[in-house]
Amino acid sequence: MDIVIIGTGNTATVLGRKLKAAGHKIIQVFGRDAKAASALAYELETESANYWSVVNRNAHIYLLAVSDIAIEEVAKEIQLPNKAIIHTAGAVSKEILKDSSDHYGVLYPLQSLKKESSYLPETPILIDASDDETLMLLEIVGKSISDSISLATDTQRLKLHLAAVFCNNFVNHMYVLMEEYCKKEGLDFQLLLPLIQETAQRIQTIPPSKSQTGPAKRHDVSTIEKHLALLEKYPDLKALYQLLTQSIQHHN
Amino acid sequence: MDIVIIGTGNTATVLGRKLKAAGHKIIQVFGRDAKAASALAYELETESANYWSVVNRNAHIYLLAVSDIAIEEVAKEIQLPNKAIIHTAGAVSKEILKDSSDHYGVLYPLQSLKKESSYLPETPILIDASDDETLMLLEIVGKSISDSISLATDTQRLKLHLAAVFCNNFVNHMYVLMEEYCKKEGLDFQLLLPLIQETAQRIQTIPPSKSQTGPAKRHDVSTIEKHLALLEKYPDLKALYQLLTQSIQHHN
Repeated sequence: MDIVIIGTGNTATVLGRKLKAAGHKIIQVFGRDAKAASALAYELETESANYWSVVNRNAHIYLLAVSDIAIEEVAKEIQLPNKAIIHTAGAVSKEILKDSSDHYGVLYPLQSLKKESSYLPETPILIDASDDETLMLLEIVGKSISDSISLATDTQRLKLHLAAVFCNNFVNHMYVLMEEYCKKEGLDFQLLLPLIQETAQRIQTIPPSKSQTGPAKRHDVSTIEKHLALLEKYPDLKALYQLLTQSIQHHN
Repeated sequence: MDIVIIGTGNTATVLGRKLKAAGHKIIQVFGRDAKAASALAYELETESANYWSVVNRNAHIYLLAVSDIAIEEVAKEIQLPNKAIIHTAGAVSKEILKDSSDHYGVLYPLQSLKKESSYLPETPILIDASDDETLMLLEIVGKSISDSISLATDTQRLKLHLAAVFCNNFVNHMYVLMEEYCKKEGLDFQLLLPLIQETAQRIQTIPPSKSQTGPAKRHDVSTIEKHLALLEKYPDLKALYQLLTQSIQHHN
């Protein structure tokens, strides 16, 4: 498939790499930042553009891998009737693209993509489209870069995006808080890395509800009180500890 | 080293396996539950005991791998002067053992250990002891089963135990909440597993503070509002979402 990638960030870069590796031809990278666009174009062995007037009109798919806010701006600027215009966002309706083409849709990678990463992580893809033809196109493209392709409506995609916030953003924030706590207390945060790895590893095969352990789950008041005493000087951590302990106990 | 293991739960079992694999001799497994004790003894190719009167008196180390509450009960029952009595708990002082022997200490595995697991996970060990001789003994035993041995006082160990609650118990609870949310909304929780894996994988090499992404971090009010609207019917999730979003924004 011939593809124009619009955007130069993490999603544009990692999807670009995956698409190229799957044998698709990236015929152009468009980016307003000329330097970033030519850097990504160089990596994907193609040409770059940074004016709308020179966007290649011969692709099968125009992949808008830009920030949520930029999707709307770009959609207003480009008119590509008969071409498939696809965005990659979890929390944006596909209808935002309806004035740019008769064929539009979404290809959302349910993964945290970082261009600095040296490997291409396993990435479930959620697709949706304005019509069957575009949906079939996305199914073919999706299958070429992932073993997991699912149909998801705007609402279903938004709900999974919300779940991703809990499973990635909020989880990573726990790590941030503990990295900071360890630093303040003169402890080595690195000691926690094997535990963090094991926690994620275990739920790959065992449902999380069967893996819950710890003082909250055991209603171990003595340990909970020792922890809360340590958190006296960290009111924000203490509030979180209390809310999460309560929440675990409500799920017992 | 000749070791008596007291306890038959997850920690007793996994440490028993690690110690045996490292070439130590488990000379007895003690457990009040005779069936559990003989099952573990069978696996570790040794004998079991379930009365204090028949506990083997010839070991170098007596490893108390029992629940926090049981440590105190056991300590009251056993007197083993000149033997090293060691507990394995994160949140219990070593001094709880001071009346049982002149040589006591702690060997705390900073990992979530499950006897059902088919592999032995990488496990940092924190040690502490009443005297240099016992400490040296624990250092030798610790090094035989782990590449990461650190000295940690009662307070340091309790602080790392608290950090482990955030990085394991609270993180796993996020997964529990989302498993439940997906089920209620008719979505497939399995789709989130690669993201969960990648989140834990990434911080093995990149500090979590550099990996934080998402609507809270970006102050993306539009997406946050869409998420909160979805959570109207889940007040507990909504409260957590709001507190964690605030907490992330305080760390920007």
